[in-house]
Amino acid sequence: MRRLLQAFGTPAHVFATPAHTLKQVVQPAVAQAIAQGWDEAVLAPTFIWLEDPNNAILTLADPDYPQALLNIPDPPLLLYVKGRRELLNRPALAIVGSRNATTQGLSNAEAFAQAASAAGLCIVSGMAHGIDAAAHRGGLRGPGSSIAVIGTGLDKVYPAANRELAHQLAQEGVLISEFSLGTPPLAANFPRRNRIISGLSLGCLVVEASLQSGSLITARMALEQGREVFAIPGSIHAPQTKGCHYLIKQGAKLVECAQDVLEELGRFDTVAELPATAPEDHPLYAHLGFDPVDMDSLCQQSGLTIEALSAILLQLELDGGVAALPGGLYQRIA
Amino acid sequence: MRRLLQAFGTPAHVFATPAHTLKQVVQPAVAQAIAQGWDEAVLAPTFIWLEDPNNAILTLADPDYPQALLNIPDPPLLLYVKGRRELLNRPALAIVGSRNATTQGLSNAEAFAQAASAAGLCIVSGMAHGIDAAAHRGGLRGPGSSIAVIGTGLDKVYPAANRELAHQLAQEGVLISEFSLGTPPLAANFPRRNRIISGLSLGCLVVEASLQSGSLITARMALEQGREVFAIPGSIHAPQTKGCHYLIKQGAKLVECAQDVLEELGRFDTVAELPATAPEDHPLYAHLGFDPVDMDSLCQQSGLTIEALSAILLQLELDGGVAALPGGLYQRIA
Repeated sequence: MRRLLQAFGTPAHVFATPAHTLKQVVQPAVAQAIAQGWDEAVLAPTFIWLEDPNNAILTLADPDYPQALLNIPDPPLLLYVKGRRELLNRPALAIVGSRNATTQGLSNAEAFAQAASAAGLCIVSGMAHGIDAAAHRGGLRGPGSSIAVIGTGLDKVYPAANRELAHQLAQEGVLISEFSLGTPPLAANFPRRNRIISGLSLGCLVVEASLQSGSLITARMALEQGREVFAIPGSIHAPQTKGCHYLIKQGAKLVECAQDVLEELGRFDTVAELPATAPEDHPLYAHLGFDPVDMDSLCQQSGLTIEALSAILLQLELDGGVAALPGGLYQRIA
Repeated sequence: MRRLLQAFGTPAHVFATPAHTLKQVVQPAVAQAIAQGWDEAVLAPTFIWLEDPNNAILTLADPDYPQALLNIPDPPLLLYVKGRRELLNRPALAIVGSRNATTQGLSNAEAFAQAASAAGLCIVSGMAHGIDAAAHRGGLRGPGSSIAVIGTGLDKVYPAANRELAHQLAQEGVLISEFSLGTPPLAANFPRRNRIISGLSLGCLVVEASLQSGSLITARMALEQGREVFAIPGSIHAPQTKGCHYLIKQGAKLVECAQDVLEELGRFDTVAELPATAPEDHPLYAHLGFDPVDMDSLCQQSGLTIEALSAILLQLELDGGVAALPGGLYQRIA
């Protein structure tokens, strides 16, 4: 999708391009499928879903799109959103851990989440059994609330046992997914989803995790994205804390209480803390004057990646707010 | 004692010096006491104690004196020793912790000590209740054996409940103290004793410690002496692990098994690993040629402090192995 947009501009242009030209950019089978056009019947359920004002699809250029995701290497081009989308630009803390957690682990996850939420941090997790679910419950109990990043389509709640939690998140928090409606639980999609959990957050707290836990993937992605990693220690004889101890040995911060996390995050200052903005005030406009400016300068000033920036500029251009000038320059025109 | 030896040379010279001259170096009361000479009746029990071949008093210049103590800022001038003095120059690991340890803590201390001893490390501790005693027991079970550093005179076993352990250490390990025979348990002497526990060791492992535990003093001294500090984590809700978690936050290495400690110490290479030497082969001779050499060069080459070096040179001079030349130069003569 990224390659097509960069080569041909807008989605409408992509669909207007003949297959033999598309093939220069994507695999022949993909080019062929695009050239056949879209199936209204397939898209119909999505348009019906969008009629609910609690649902939305956000593009990279949408002011509600989480700004924190714009400084990860591969922000999702589209985000399906169900619930309070304004939470997506709150300072956030990821809390993740094992599905097979101990009672103490669940209680720790809930207590840390509730304290961080009380301090205004939005709790991000993956709505899995165990630590994830406990973290959401704690987050929902405070003003920070909670974001669930789902590895399926938003109409497919997985696991089913969390249906009630999903319902509460849709009302009081928010559920998001980069996967189209109807996407079933696929093993490959869950690790991929983890980059969004860490990317949305200032830091990632691992509560209980075995050495095989997917939480270690989330923690590694957090490190790669320049996020802080925290871990709660435990007995050296419990398999559920081996992953946490591994992370601490690698440099994660050992934390004993939510205050330890809050003190560390107090030193942070990232794009995620930008105030929510009105549609006409996309944050990029702060760096885009009425004088032409080049891509490199925009990258430096905004802290965004070239990919994120290209996508946003494209959308702003479509919205009529920005003009692309010869020589790779961009200018604000509205 | 250090000041007197530096000013007047040998102990015999000190006792031959009149009080009004001693007063230029020490407090008048001390000068007066020295000028009155020593009381044979007071010293008699020490000479009787020394008749047992298992007992000894080591000076800084004795080849059996633990070389690892020569690179701490304040090595004891005399060490009372009961047991296998050759253990004092083995590579060593301090294992310390709370008196009020949990069953799991005691079991961890013993298991780590036994595994480290099996790998050839001598286990150093303070023979207190709890973790200390468990560490000694584990150490005695392997070839590395164990050193107890006592805060009283060697004839006063404290606490009394450890009498049997003390007896075993005197036979299969070694007990040492810098305090004269007859010194009772005095609160002030225990923290002071801790610098010897850490100073003898390549690293210091804290097994369980509250935030008030004396083990944290030992760990701080270990850091000041350039030793590695290790800590075993535990539940964030247990007071017995708060001290360990504090140390890990400050940079101590979290360890889950003895192998973690051994791997870290494998990178060490300190004076403590020098092979035991015959009397005529004091390690300092390696840096003392038959050409005159100055104090600064000797410090650099040996890695010893000025204080330790002065004391050793003095002793070697008394032994007839070294000559002090004009201009602050020293030369090997035997």
